[in-house]
Amino acid sequence: MEPEHHPDQLIKHHRHTRELLNQISTLLEKQSLVTGLVERQEMPQHQLVSFLVQRQQANHLRQQINHFHPADIAMALESLPKEQRNQLWDLIDTGHLGAVLIELSDPVRESLLHDMGRDQLMRAAWQLESDELADLLPQLPSHIIPDLLASLEHEDREQVKTAAAFPPDSVGALMDFDILSVRIDNTLDVVLRFLRRRGSIPEDSAVLMVVDRSGYLKGTLSLESILVNDGETRVEELMNSKPIAFHTDDSLQQTANAFERYNLITAPVINAHGQLLGCLNVEAVLEYIHKESKKDILAQAGLREEEDIFAPVWRSGRNRWPWLALNLCIAFIASRIIGQFEDTITQVVALAALLPITANIGGNAGNQAMALVIRSLALHQLNRSNFSHLLIKELMIGVMNGLLWGSIMGLATWILYDRFDLALIMVSAMVVTLVVAALTGVLIPVALKQAGQDPVLGSSILISGITDTFGFLIFLGLAASII
Amino acid sequence: MEPEHHPDQLIKHHRHTRELLNQISTLLEKQSLVTGLVERQEMPQHQLVSFLVQRQQANHLRQQINHFHPADIAMALESLPKEQRNQLWDLIDTGHLGAVLIELSDPVRESLLHDMGRDQLMRAAWQLESDELADLLPQLPSHIIPDLLASLEHEDREQVKTAAAFPPDSVGALMDFDILSVRIDNTLDVVLRFLRRRGSIPEDSAVLMVVDRSGYLKGTLSLESILVNDGETRVEELMNSKPIAFHTDDSLQQTANAFERYNLITAPVINAHGQLLGCLNVEAVLEYIHKESKKDILAQAGLREEEDIFAPVWRSGRNRWPWLALNLCIAFIASRIIGQFEDTITQVVALAALLPITANIGGNAGNQAMALVIRSLALHQLNRSNFSHLLIKELMIGVMNGLLWGSIMGLATWILYDRFDLALIMVSAMVVTLVVAALTGVLIPVALKQAGQDPVLGSSILISGITDTFGFLIFLGLAASII
Repeated sequence: MEPEHHPDQLIKHHRHTRELLNQISTLLEKQSLVTGLVERQEMPQHQLVSFLVQRQQANHLRQQINHFHPADIAMALESLPKEQRNQLWDLIDTGHLGAVLIELSDPVRESLLHDMGRDQLMRAAWQLESDELADLLPQLPSHIIPDLLASLEHEDREQVKTAAAFPPDSVGALMDFDILSVRIDNTLDVVLRFLRRRGSIPEDSAVLMVVDRSGYLKGTLSLESILVNDGETRVEELMNSKPIAFHTDDSLQQTANAFERYNLITAPVINAHGQLLGCLNVEAVLEYIHKESKKDILAQAGLREEEDIFAPVWRSGRNRWPWLALNLCIAFIASRIIGQFEDTITQVVALAALLPITANIGGNAGNQAMALVIRSLALHQLNRSNFSHLLIKELMIGVMNGLLWGSIMGLATWILYDRFDLALIMVSAMVVTLVVAALTGVLIPVALKQAGQDPVLGSSILISGITDTFGFLIFLGLAASII
Repeated sequence: MEPEHHPDQLIKHHRHTRELLNQISTLLEKQSLVTGLVERQEMPQHQLVSFLVQRQQANHLRQQINHFHPADIAMALESLPKEQRNQLWDLIDTGHLGAVLIELSDPVRESLLHDMGRDQLMRAAWQLESDELADLLPQLPSHIIPDLLASLEHEDREQVKTAAAFPPDSVGALMDFDILSVRIDNTLDVVLRFLRRRGSIPEDSAVLMVVDRSGYLKGTLSLESILVNDGETRVEELMNSKPIAFHTDDSLQQTANAFERYNLITAPVINAHGQLLGCLNVEAVLEYIHKESKKDILAQAGLREEEDIFAPVWRSGRNRWPWLALNLCIAFIASRIIGQFEDTITQVVALAALLPITANIGGNAGNQAMALVIRSLALHQLNRSNFSHLLIKELMIGVMNGLLWGSIMGLATWILYDRFDLALIMVSAMVVTLVVAALTGVLIPVALKQAGQDPVLGSSILISGITDTFGFLIFLGLAASII
């Protein structure tokens, strides 16, 4: 409670990201204001003075902004419209550009790289680790890549080439080459002397890698065990001889699951022969998960790539075409189905009003079943042996909910139109539509997955298209045969 | 390349989860078969023999299954239908039950807890850490809780009570009480002696906490710095004096973002006065993220809670009612709107067939805009200052895509029905509907967020409901005034 105990020296993490953004916004506005005054020469008599003020302000702003964490600067860049974004970018110290670039989302990074000069690009690239540089490489202007690679040391160049050769969703692409390995036959005293001479351990490593003379992975040694055990002990006695290791071609999705499941912090990465190539750290995994998060919601609506929210209208608009086009095709088919029943509708025009109800609720029920299936697929809960069990269950739910909500809507129809036949059509159509919706909701994501596709991609469009089409067909087909 | 170098002793992580499940399934089937034979007494003459065989098989099975990682057993339990699930559960050693329970999803855990006896429950609970037990507490049968708490040591009991008092989505609920703190004025030699005497460090801690005499957090000391520095050095000189610390009431969502952004492994948790209470580890954060993942897809379809895919039909079906009901209400309103235009439809029955097209594509376009907004909200890219910029951009995309796809559909309508007025209605309705869809897609998630709600919850139902309703109104309204 005494004020002198308050931890004033602790930086609280930025809980209020909004505050941070507002701060940067205000700083940028101040800067524009002063620049504007000088450029418009509204104070010509004080020109020199205001110029100096401007310089001072810019320096102050620069200092403040470069004090932020690169990840925070990246977030600020992503939330600024183009003009302010470039303004902020120009204020970042060249020494920080690399760190900020690596934190940016692809589309924003691309737009900023596009405007950078050759020298600035080279200097930014030199600040990166091999795996980070490999990640950046495809977005760099092709004419600077040979020079950039030539400017690296031999070992680094080879690492960049190796990392760039791995597919972007594989462990190899995120692997850290900077590992510290010790020999299996050393004692802790030898290891400790080695560490003190080296003066540092690769950032955030929780374990040292244990190898034999030929570089084959033999186990991992936690920093803890070096600290709490006697110096005479040999590495072999203390190491974890059965560490969970990954291959360079393992999928990151499954690797991320393994990190969560087995509580990993640092895991060795080996080649097919068991030789140690590098390691994978939990931060890299977290960053991967973060980049993947919310992609599902985009994918469901048929947007495969992340989008810069400040990309030009034309580019963003075009991004949405492929699935809009598919959507339109399905809607056109649904429309033609209604067209086949024009005679029936002319007889009972109330059908036109009742028509969308079953289709609409079918789309929703299908979405619900599909959401559960997509989740079960992602969590590996669904497999060949329990698939039919799940399908039957969803079909039964379809019948149950169809009878319940169909009866309610049937009653409403009866009251509204005073026609029992319409009410009967409503109940029957609802049950059949909800069964079709359940079937579609289970089968579409499973079929997409079987075909090697992302089960989420475009799924909400497909499901609403199919339930609409079948919903109309069932409702009008029943109507035509009963009325 | 030489075979003797192959790392046979390395356990590769289970890349093929399916294999693992198949293995367990086969084991369970074998077990049932033997049990069946004995129970049905089809080999009465060998009864004793087969009984022994069965015992042996069961023991073998038990051994194999208890060899798996608790997280893998949990996953297997989640993917088995009720009967097999209980069969597998009975085979798990009492000593592992706690570890497996804590890895299970809520609904599956609940169903298993329901069938456990009092003694078994107590023994499983004793295996858990305070924060884990607090997590389990709300699901335990209320009559055993007092006894369970009474059976704990005083310190543990207080910790469980403390942890249980925090809201489930706060840092306090995931906080680890088991921390190792050292005093700011110690030397590394003193710290090292202390660690050796203690013999262990809390699992997966990357740092030790540094406190003053009154327990106020002063910094963190990485294990690395203890290893690579001279024993005479004082903790104060080496510690990170500005660690990123969290408060017990910080939201886990934002804390997870901070862990990703600042590459944290272990972070101190403090109270409002800066006193050290515990720590938060990256594994707990990863587990939280994993549990949250794919929840969005459920939430979008109006399913707030995760669901046991093998829950009874009745219970699963009921889970889906609230949003189906809302959906039905909206669909009913949309239907009444069409009802108002029955005269117009009687005049030109083609309208009934063309009606769903604009509404349908509006729903899709609205979903696309909404997906981007939800993602931007989650990544904190959207704020007061850039909101109008985004809204205007989306409206412009609506106009652009409305004109493009509206013209295509208009042309199709003209060719199909040979009526220019219908084509004109189609183009105009498409533009207006896509603008309304963009407006809804941006405003709904932002409004939900402003109201303190999850911007994802039910969003796909709301958006399709609103675009349907407006789509019908716009299309038929235009038709009524033009025809």
